[in-house]
Amino acid sequence: MITRVAIVGTGLIGASVGLALKASGFQGEIAGWDADAGEAATALRMGALDQALPSAEAVLAPGMADVYVLATPVLAVLDWIERLAPVLLAGQLVTDVGSTKAEISALAAQRFAGSGKTGPGKAAFLPGHPMAGKESGGAARAEATLFRGATWLFTPLNAAPSPLETEWRALVAGFGAQTLDLAPARHDELCAWVSHLPQMAATALAGLLEETFAGDAAGMAALQAMGGRALGEMTRLGASPYSMWRDVALTNTVPLAATLLALEQQLAHLRENLRTPELRNEFAAANRFRARRG
Amino acid sequence: MITRVAIVGTGLIGASVGLALKASGFQGEIAGWDADAGEAATALRMGALDQALPSAEAVLAPGMADVYVLATPVLAVLDWIERLAPVLLAGQLVTDVGSTKAEISALAAQRFAGSGKTGPGKAAFLPGHPMAGKESGGAARAEATLFRGATWLFTPLNAAPSPLETEWRALVAGFGAQTLDLAPARHDELCAWVSHLPQMAATALAGLLEETFAGDAAGMAALQAMGGRALGEMTRLGASPYSMWRDVALTNTVPLAATLLALEQQLAHLRENLRTPELRNEFAAANRFRARRG
Repeated sequence: MITRVAIVGTGLIGASVGLALKASGFQGEIAGWDADAGEAATALRMGALDQALPSAEAVLAPGMADVYVLATPVLAVLDWIERLAPVLLAGQLVTDVGSTKAEISALAAQRFAGSGKTGPGKAAFLPGHPMAGKESGGAARAEATLFRGATWLFTPLNAAPSPLETEWRALVAGFGAQTLDLAPARHDELCAWVSHLPQMAATALAGLLEETFAGDAAGMAALQAMGGRALGEMTRLGASPYSMWRDVALTNTVPLAATLLALEQQLAHLRENLRTPELRNEFAAANRFRARRG
Repeated sequence: MITRVAIVGTGLIGASVGLALKASGFQGEIAGWDADAGEAATALRMGALDQALPSAEAVLAPGMADVYVLATPVLAVLDWIERLAPVLLAGQLVTDVGSTKAEISALAAQRFAGSGKTGPGKAAFLPGHPMAGKESGGAARAEATLFRGATWLFTPLNAAPSPLETEWRALVAGFGAQTLDLAPARHDELCAWVSHLPQMAATALAGLLEETFAGDAAGMAALQAMGGRALGEMTRLGASPYSMWRDVALTNTVPLAATLLALEQQLAHLRENLRTPELRNEFAAANRFRARRG
């Protein structure tokens, strides 16, 4: 039974997990740590944590928690897997919220009780990924309702969930999220399409406008005055931080590069057909995609 | 003094002009016509019009209106310029809301009282373009407040506005819009960046997802479940109708093709730098663009 949760990384997602646990009636204790002590202090002040741990070493203290939630960028998740694996025991669970799952799942399967490695003395690991966020991070933007209506993906290492995994899944359902299990490679391929490619498209468009008009004050002013909802939406994700997306790019390079190349080709196809009836077919395909959303 | 307005094309924008005129206290009469009689009937029922004209010929009746608002796709605006020019007189004004301005302004300068052609017997023409809209058109979606806070662009043919032009500009200001004057070519170049390129990017992304996953029911279902605000925003404009954008593509081909090629190159640059520090520079440029919005 989960009575103590440790949240490693108390930024937007980590602090929102704490708030969602509290809001959904979780009665246990929540400890948290962040590399930025100010983030942990904010999370504590907002009520996302019961306790801010004083150091990374405190996270590693024996029996610190039943469930460890790694809520950092992906490379830091990989680091924490290496640090936690030697000190945790069977009967403890580590889960994460990292944006890519192939590298995390592969390393966790080696270090934790993965497929065929369910012997005693090894803690369990459940790779997870809530499809929720904001273009700007930080504990101050955390919300108890961040995961309501969102899909929380898992790429489980074992076919049969351990009791702690089942309990963690129930807590996530209590946040108002729908859960969906995928194989790690399929997760990363689909996330490249629905999340990483849209992010890179927004970064490309916003960066291109900045680079084109930064030296043209009148043009930039007109651009800002003229730009409406369409420009705002299509560039909003341009505010997203490099610190998080660097790790996505490094751990999902091949699938993401494939989707980027496909989008480049799609744009070139539109460009070459601005004056031909083929443009109608491309608008029709886009119309069909939107109509699926119902 | 403007006492009678004729709206040619009573879809989303045309009907919203009628509603905005009424809401801002315009006391004159508003007549309207649409190639789709159902659209004109809807606009009449919503109170955007006082009268639905029975035929295109009725629009051309001598003295039908003081101001004619051409609120159709761009190619139809060009057609109406040809039809109206021979039957209108000095003391009448034609304005339009077309998405591109170079071709419209050039033709209007030939057919109406443009630069150096202000002699008697010629009506005035004021090319216009409200930066407002929705991804789906139609009179039923019209709103009196559609232009509130939006920028209404003009590409005037004459340096000094005629009294009717001044009066029309005042009515537009009464809709809650800010007006901004641009040269036609500059308008089309800036609109390629802020409007046409974002549209094509959304069409490309939505169309690509449709074409990639239409034959993969499980993938499409996962895509729909996983896609959150980011995917929704980045594909929303994918619902936009070909009928309107065909005319934009045909009348702004060269500027739009240049922006599309630049975006293709920007995406390729990101793709080639997914694992290098250059990715940081591209995120920083995108961050700076968003920070300008304040």
